[in-house]
Amino acid sequence: MITRLTATYRVRTDAASIAARAQAIAVEQSVEMPLDAITDAAVLRDVVGQVQDITDLGDGSFAVRIGLALASIGTDAGQLFNMLFGNVSLQDDVTLHDVDLPPELARAFGGPNIGMAALRTRVGATDRAFTCSAIKPQGLPVPALADLAARFAEGGIDYIKDDHGMADQAYGRFADRVPAIAAAIRATGAATRYVPSLSGNLDAMRTQLRITQECGLDAVIISPMLAGFSNVQSLVRNFPTMAFFAHPTLGGAARIAPDLLIGKLFRLLGADAVIFPNHGGRFGYSPDTCRRLAANATGANPDLKPAIPVPAGGMTLARTPEMLDFYGRDVMVLIGGNLLLARDRLAAATAEFTRAVAHHSYR
Amino acid sequence: MITRLTATYRVRTDAASIAARAQAIAVEQSVEMPLDAITDAAVLRDVVGQVQDITDLGDGSFAVRIGLALASIGTDAGQLFNMLFGNVSLQDDVTLHDVDLPPELARAFGGPNIGMAALRTRVGATDRAFTCSAIKPQGLPVPALADLAARFAEGGIDYIKDDHGMADQAYGRFADRVPAIAAAIRATGAATRYVPSLSGNLDAMRTQLRITQECGLDAVIISPMLAGFSNVQSLVRNFPTMAFFAHPTLGGAARIAPDLLIGKLFRLLGADAVIFPNHGGRFGYSPDTCRRLAANATGANPDLKPAIPVPAGGMTLARTPEMLDFYGRDVMVLIGGNLLLARDRLAAATAEFTRAVAHHSYR
Repeated sequence: MITRLTATYRVRTDAASIAARAQAIAVEQSVEMPLDAITDAAVLRDVVGQVQDITDLGDGSFAVRIGLALASIGTDAGQLFNMLFGNVSLQDDVTLHDVDLPPELARAFGGPNIGMAALRTRVGATDRAFTCSAIKPQGLPVPALADLAARFAEGGIDYIKDDHGMADQAYGRFADRVPAIAAAIRATGAATRYVPSLSGNLDAMRTQLRITQECGLDAVIISPMLAGFSNVQSLVRNFPTMAFFAHPTLGGAARIAPDLLIGKLFRLLGADAVIFPNHGGRFGYSPDTCRRLAANATGANPDLKPAIPVPAGGMTLARTPEMLDFYGRDVMVLIGGNLLLARDRLAAATAEFTRAVAHHSYR
Repeated sequence: MITRLTATYRVRTDAASIAARAQAIAVEQSVEMPLDAITDAAVLRDVVGQVQDITDLGDGSFAVRIGLALASIGTDAGQLFNMLFGNVSLQDDVTLHDVDLPPELARAFGGPNIGMAALRTRVGATDRAFTCSAIKPQGLPVPALADLAARFAEGGIDYIKDDHGMADQAYGRFADRVPAIAAAIRATGAATRYVPSLSGNLDAMRTQLRITQECGLDAVIISPMLAGFSNVQSLVRNFPTMAFFAHPTLGGAARIAPDLLIGKLFRLLGADAVIFPNHGGRFGYSPDTCRRLAANATGANPDLKPAIPVPAGGMTLARTPEMLDFYGRDVMVLIGGNLLLARDRLAAATAEFTRAVAHHSYR
């Protein structure tokens, strides 16, 4: 029986210090006290973190692999993050680089409800990449937002998401916005799916999910760094027919490697789709980070359905062919503001985008 | 009427780029789309973020002050973090440095239920600094943890907190642990308060709060970065006689200045006490950061009660006088592992600690 998971940290320090530094991380992320003060042999044996390996990366940093007791995590998502990186996140010479997910943990968490394949079926995108756009700006009156959504649907887009800044503000209440936009899309007859964004506490998010279901919708956006990891976990389990798109807001640039946080851990929590900043856009992720993130989201795992990667953040129609060649068919290309620049020509610009994705000749 | 709050970011870039970079942040943290694609004049005027000021800090970075519309935040804590730093947290050249809290926002959030003064009254620490320790390690059987708590109480400690790694694991269920430890402390007759640590989703935390109250306890620890900000906010409002100690776990992942995050924003959410890593311990915070953090927690605000700063993270009996001179009387000195090293002499070592705090001659 596997009783530990292995977390890999990157530590900036020198060769003389790394052994003590690694041991300090193992203690910090488990019992958080001097081992000399622990009188219980079982705790020393089964609960204290264990340094498994230290590798000099040759760039002034080291990879440190630490075995953390699964018993200290249990099956709660908040506690998983607490034990992986809670206190050590406060030390600026350490990043959380990767986690090996034991099957026990993957099974206990369960991952996506729906997964990539079912997302494909829902919109008829069985053998091609997906298309996605976003309605915005927040503050625009609901009828105008609904009109944008209808234009996207006329252009044949697969998924339309709320901008992640759209919450439950006085100028666009969730309970007003979501039914109006759902109705506008339905009126077009398109297979387009609308994905509203959840916000607020667990009770508020549950209410929003019920509104979403009552509108005949089957997907939502959730922001794990805002919502609380355990709340994401329970919503995913309690709404089993709903697809969850994870948004990376407040995800930080690099203290937790983005490919781990967004590609692997958000999938573990139950994300069917993971939104992230594509390389070369408004954010600094490298092509390698994006490639690893997509591989983590889609990679085979007997206990976790694949999640669809959704690269975004300043993407354009002009970049679409390059993105398709980079990610292949297992991608949802999200173009938001660049399409909205078409203004009165929005439906036509969207149709151009969806055709470009459907008819792309892969290199 | 104030309609915007001012957020200050620190941006690493050059003089030729800063104006465009500042404007990009203002857009990213509000409407997140090209302004040319916005057709609604009211959105452009009232919702788009406004660059208010740019100051060259002379060290390769700039302070950028941006006015964010209060209407985009409303009164939800998750949305506050989303608008302050959501997407920009993904850009590694930016940190969130400070936020000016308008009275409207402070009143809407409400801050601590209890505040520093009431925490003093509860343990009779009316004219001195507080003392605090932690029971650990996680995994130690509950009777042994309860015995540690009793020894701390015999030594006259004010507050005993759960180690933040103690959640609801199979080896120490909250519902078993908390009543046993509360009873052990009560049996000593001391005024010592026990502060259990909440974990899990909002429902689980509510259940844990009820158990805590049924045990006659009046304080808990909550970890805002794990729990979800909106959930913290609603628990604080729904349990008005309960004191909330905020733990900073996972607080370093997002690159928000610690004095802002822990001292100011956690207080805004309702923390009566804010735990943070003291300078010179196991974490890298500077004395200046700690001083600013404490000032943010305790500073006068007509709408927010003061929160007590709780410096921690490898503190020792030997450092206690220096910490008292540094922070003054408005501090709760937390010594955990260093006291536990006393093992069989734990009550005596604790008494030494509490006497040192009570009889300190301030410089």
